Amino acid sequence: MVWDVLNVIGTIAFAISGAIIAMEVKYDIIGTYALGMITAFGGGAVRNLLIGIPIENLWQQTPLFIIALITITIVFLLPAETVHRMKKWNLFDAIGLSAFAVQGGMHAYSNDLPILAIMFSAAITGAGGGIIRDVLAQQKPIVFQKEVYLFWAMLAGFIIGMGWAEKPYQLYILFGVILVLRVMSYRLGWCLPIRTVTKLQEN
Amino acid sequence: MVWDVLNVIGTIAFAISGAIIAMEVKYDIIGTYALGMITAFGGGAVRNLLIGIPIENLWQQTPLFIIALITITIVFLLPAETVHRMKKWNLFDAIGLSAFAVQGGMHAYSNDLPILAIMFSAAITGAGGGIIRDVLAQQKPIVFQKEVYLFWAMLAGFIIGMGWAEKPYQLYILFGVILVLRVMSYRLGWCLPIRTVTKLQEN
Amino acid sequence: MVWDVLNVIGTIAFAISGAIIAMEVKYDIIGTYALGMITAFGGGAVRNLLIGIPIENLWQQTPLFIIALITITIVFLLPAETVHRMKKWNLFDAIGLSAFAVQGGMHAYSNDLPILAIMFSAAITGAGGGIIRDVLAQQKPIVFQKEVYLFWAMLAGFIIGMGWAEKPYQLYILFGVILVLRVMSYRLGWCLPIRTVTKLQEN
Repeated sequence: MVWDVLNVIGTIAFAISGAIIAMEVKYDIIGTYALGMITAFGGGAVRNLLIGIPIENLWQQTPLFIIALITITIVFLLPAETVHRMKKWNLFDAIGLSAFAVQGGMHAYSNDLPILAIMFSAAITGAGGGIIRDVLAQQKPIVFQKEVYLFWAMLAGFIIGMGWAEKPYQLYILFGVILVLRVMSYRLGWCLPIRTVTKLQEN
Repeated sequence: MVWDVLNVIGTIAFAISGAIIAMEVKYDIIGTYALGMITAFGGGAVRNLLIGIPIENLWQQTPLFIIALITITIVFLLPAETVHRMKKWNLFDAIGLSAFAVQGGMHAYSNDLPILAIMFSAAITGAGGGIIRDVLAQQKPIVFQKEVYLFWAMLAGFIIGMGWAEKPYQLYILFGVILVLRVMSYRLGWCLPIRTVTKLQEN
Repeated sequence: MVWDVLNVIGTIAFAISGAIIAMEVKYDIIGTYALGMITAFGGGAVRNLLIGIPIENLWQQTPLFIIALITITIVFLLPAETVHRMKKWNLFDAIGLSAFAVQGGMHAYSNDLPILAIMFSAAITGAGGGIIRDVLAQQKPIVFQKEVYLFWAMLAGFIIGMGWAEKPYQLYILFGVILVLRVMSYRLGWCLPIRTVTKLQEN
């Protein structure tokens, strides 16, 4: 149940985020649908691939596909001003990240994987769609940028892996906390340490 | 038979298109071969991956590999002027798209998949190689750009999925029609609706 | 044994190379770890995927993961000057390329694959991690650039495929030779033929 709710939330949020970026880089309507769908389902596909779940399981989610298609249609039809407001704070990317990170963590946890694998599953499920989205829109992946991103996904995985969040209400709280932390990182410019190494011309 | 003919046509066309782009972005001879091969076989590989066919089936196509290698060799040796002429209208990309879209649609149709899956298979088989090619050449994927592209592949999938093209001659006609439609879109600048959302600096 | 030694060498070298590039493009500490790990394990993952080995075998390499994590931690803590010196000649990328090319070749050879498949396995295992690294750091893949790169990996595969390097000391020598050849290509600007085709504006 929690699983399905998070799945729907994450799918909608990433579909929105993919569609918005597609419109920003001037892709046409089909490109908008394509990028929205790829963003919504890419993270799960990469996770399945890496964890060894048949990737074609993807296709047994017809209701989710329909939800994503409807979502993208709505985004496409919204007035420009509304879309602008939706882009604020990268909110939908953050919702997708949090929902899928928790879900990816739950998935690995229920398979009794070791804690590092659970953290990884949370990270890749939460971040995978966004990475693919940014590569296909020719943008530097937001995931690796300076505001804290992957860390929150891994934190979600860690908390789930320690068995600290098993009941539905705990998982929903975890989702909310990760979401708030991510939005705050972006808004307040929280940074993890960066080591800058300037690029030298070699000869 | 139709399958094999389209396979050969699509492989040759995408090998040419990948090799030309590699030369444009100044990759060396091995890079040209690599990008040509990746473009020619990437779409099928991604489709196999997503549909659940063992991806290593790829390796049972020795004749096709040889055809692609010979094709790239010829492109590499052609005079610059001829290569320029071959780039006109993105013709070879269009041939590859049409051939592989029909073939991808046929593949899914023969497996009794639902119509949406057939359309998807046509789209990803037709467009996958070109997406990988453009990402590796650091160009914005042509697939998502404003002239109609994915739509034609999905149209091919739709027509096949409805059972409107089953006999060889019908499939060849479909290939030709999709090809002409794609070239015309590019030449005449046909566009699907675009929603432009300017990029805002947020604070 | 040779296999394991090369695995450790290649993993360390690519982890260093991924971490350095992440710092160059100003990714944060988690982004640095992520890109380091992806570079270290990406080539093997892509190879497994294409050759049909279950990709989740990746996860049975806990010692290697730990080695890579420690390596990246060290790189992150090194003084800037040392990091600069490590970037010279793309040395670590070259070490990773050579180690994984030989290893990828050995892998395919021990499975009695045909010589072209052995050359391909050497190329993709050696180059795969670097390609993914460069795409994720939004750089033009070094693999395809003008200084000889893929050719050396394929040469390693060819020599292994011909049965000319079977004993451990032969394989170590092969590793060293490929490494020296790659570094010399870069330092001396060795080039394979390039066909430059200028980009035309079409109308």
